Amino acid sequence: MNESEMKMARLRAEEIIYRYLPEEKGYPATIVSAINYSVKAGGKRLRPIFMYETYKMFGGEGEVIEPFMAAIEMIHNYSLVHDDLEAMDNDEFRRGRKTTHVIYGEGMAVLAGDGLLNLAFETALKAFDVKEADTGRTIRALRVLADKSGLHGMLGGQACDVDADQKKKKLDLDELMYIHENKTGALIQASMEIGALLAGAPMKEVDIISQVALLVGTAFQIEDDILDVEGDEKLIGKRVGSDEKNNKTTYVTLKGLEESKKDAKEMSEKATELFDSIGRSNEFLRGLILSMIGRTS
Amino acid sequence: MNESEMKMARLRAEEIIYRYLPEEKGYPATIVSAINYSVKAGGKRLRPIFMYETYKMFGGEGEVIEPFMAAIEMIHNYSLVHDDLEAMDNDEFRRGRKTTHVIYGEGMAVLAGDGLLNLAFETALKAFDVKEADTGRTIRALRVLADKSGLHGMLGGQACDVDADQKKKKLDLDELMYIHENKTGALIQASMEIGALLAGAPMKEVDIISQVALLVGTAFQIEDDILDVEGDEKLIGKRVGSDEKNNKTTYVTLKGLEESKKDAKEMSEKATELFDSIGRSNEFLRGLILSMIGRTS
Repeated sequence: MNESEMKMARLRAEEIIYRYLPEEKGYPATIVSAINYSVKAGGKRLRPIFMYETYKMFGGEGEVIEPFMAAIEMIHNYSLVHDDLEAMDNDEFRRGRKTTHVIYGEGMAVLAGDGLLNLAFETALKAFDVKEADTGRTIRALRVLADKSGLHGMLGGQACDVDADQKKKKLDLDELMYIHENKTGALIQASMEIGALLAGAPMKEVDIISQVALLVGTAFQIEDDILDVEGDEKLIGKRVGSDEKNNKTTYVTLKGLEESKKDAKEMSEKATELFDSIGRSNEFLRGLILSMIGRTS
Repeated sequence: MNESEMKMARLRAEEIIYRYLPEEKGYPATIVSAINYSVKAGGKRLRPIFMYETYKMFGGEGEVIEPFMAAIEMIHNYSLVHDDLEAMDNDEFRRGRKTTHVIYGEGMAVLAGDGLLNLAFETALKAFDVKEADTGRTIRALRVLADKSGLHGMLGGQACDVDADQKKKKLDLDELMYIHENKTGALIQASMEIGALLAGAPMKEVDIISQVALLVGTAFQIEDDILDVEGDEKLIGKRVGSDEKNNKTTYVTLKGLEESKKDAKEMSEKATELFDSIGRSNEFLRGLILSMIGRTS
């Protein structure tokens, strides 16, 4: 995987995502404008890329994956719009641009996030229109999308995190792992599971790729905690030591630096080992996974 | 339709809705508690009742309707939780109880609304598990649910309303009708369309019942505008004259009292006529429709 391959993958994902965005015309013009502003703010498009590459790895060749690629990015984006609200993190900038609530107001940003979540399901349902779509597999993929976004996935992790913050509660390791696995891990899991499902992968291999995704998501978060202590500010894009300053429970505060590094390394190795055990090849995807984990060893 | 029939219908709907609510255990306990608090706050459960009665009218007898009854009420409830937020209407009470954001905080209330919207789709997808479910009809019903809740339905109407409020913009009649048809009308339409679809009604009849629902929703809103001017405060549950006080554009401010009454009456008559033209009978549903419209003639 190199820079230009990554850029091409991102542009391909964006072309697909943008096709499913609503048109800015007619009465609900302001909310549509707010939705498009937030989705077009940029980002790595990691989730749709993971989904697409997993689909290809398992031999997928059709268009049924496209509405799901757009849908998972919409869900990721709605979570960012709502995270940035004054009522939550109160962030005024993201990726160098003003956040949605700053431009459109807090109320309209709540509605824009709602709109994106709803649109994600409207969009994913379009997969049934694709000629080659297998109905049973599409239903399974819809379920993965809904489950991994909700209370037993991303939103559950996010709610647990917000709750602990509000109550200034120290987390124990089980709680922290729950947050790490769900807040970030669940959507990566959904991306790869859906890619495999829609490509017609055997359920045993869908299960393995799902385990890989969860390990990748979790190792990535633990490495984030490590990099917050000893990383290079330029590379991680935020101040070293911000977790300590915010009095935040992290993997490092609970297990110490050395133990954390050891666990992240073990998870990364386990992820690559499982990935290779499937016996299918996608060098780009393998490179992408390796670039996300193993950053601290 | 009498009081005790209506109460029975409400209790039956609640028994079904409550069955699909999440259990308050494990890590995301606070958000689950916020979700259950908001759904259990009461209400007439009109949408699931409309859905169930339409289903029965078209000969539906199975359980496939139940997840959709729960889902439509979850969508209605998420919209209330978000409407009540400080960032929106800043309402502290609803149905005599403190609103969700007052009890759980603004951030958690945003997440609880998100959770309800997501849960609605998770729940509706369970319809595929019901033995008698027709896959094609269930997919159509899912699409109606998603479309009528989103930018081209409830949320579009709500966003247009909030936008006009924020910009202190006077609405014209087209815009006001768009809001009336979508903000309230769209979910009533979804309820009755889904009931008819899942009962296996011919598409022509699904289309008629959808027109009936839209007329009922719109007439109901226009009558609300009339009752705000000349209604009985005890009956309408809010202060007479509140629209004028809030400088709100209503059907009455645009068309005058007499013309508004005439239009509401025409819509109500058209709705009953269309309903009767289907040639199927459900006296309870007919009574329920009549109780919602014709309140001003």
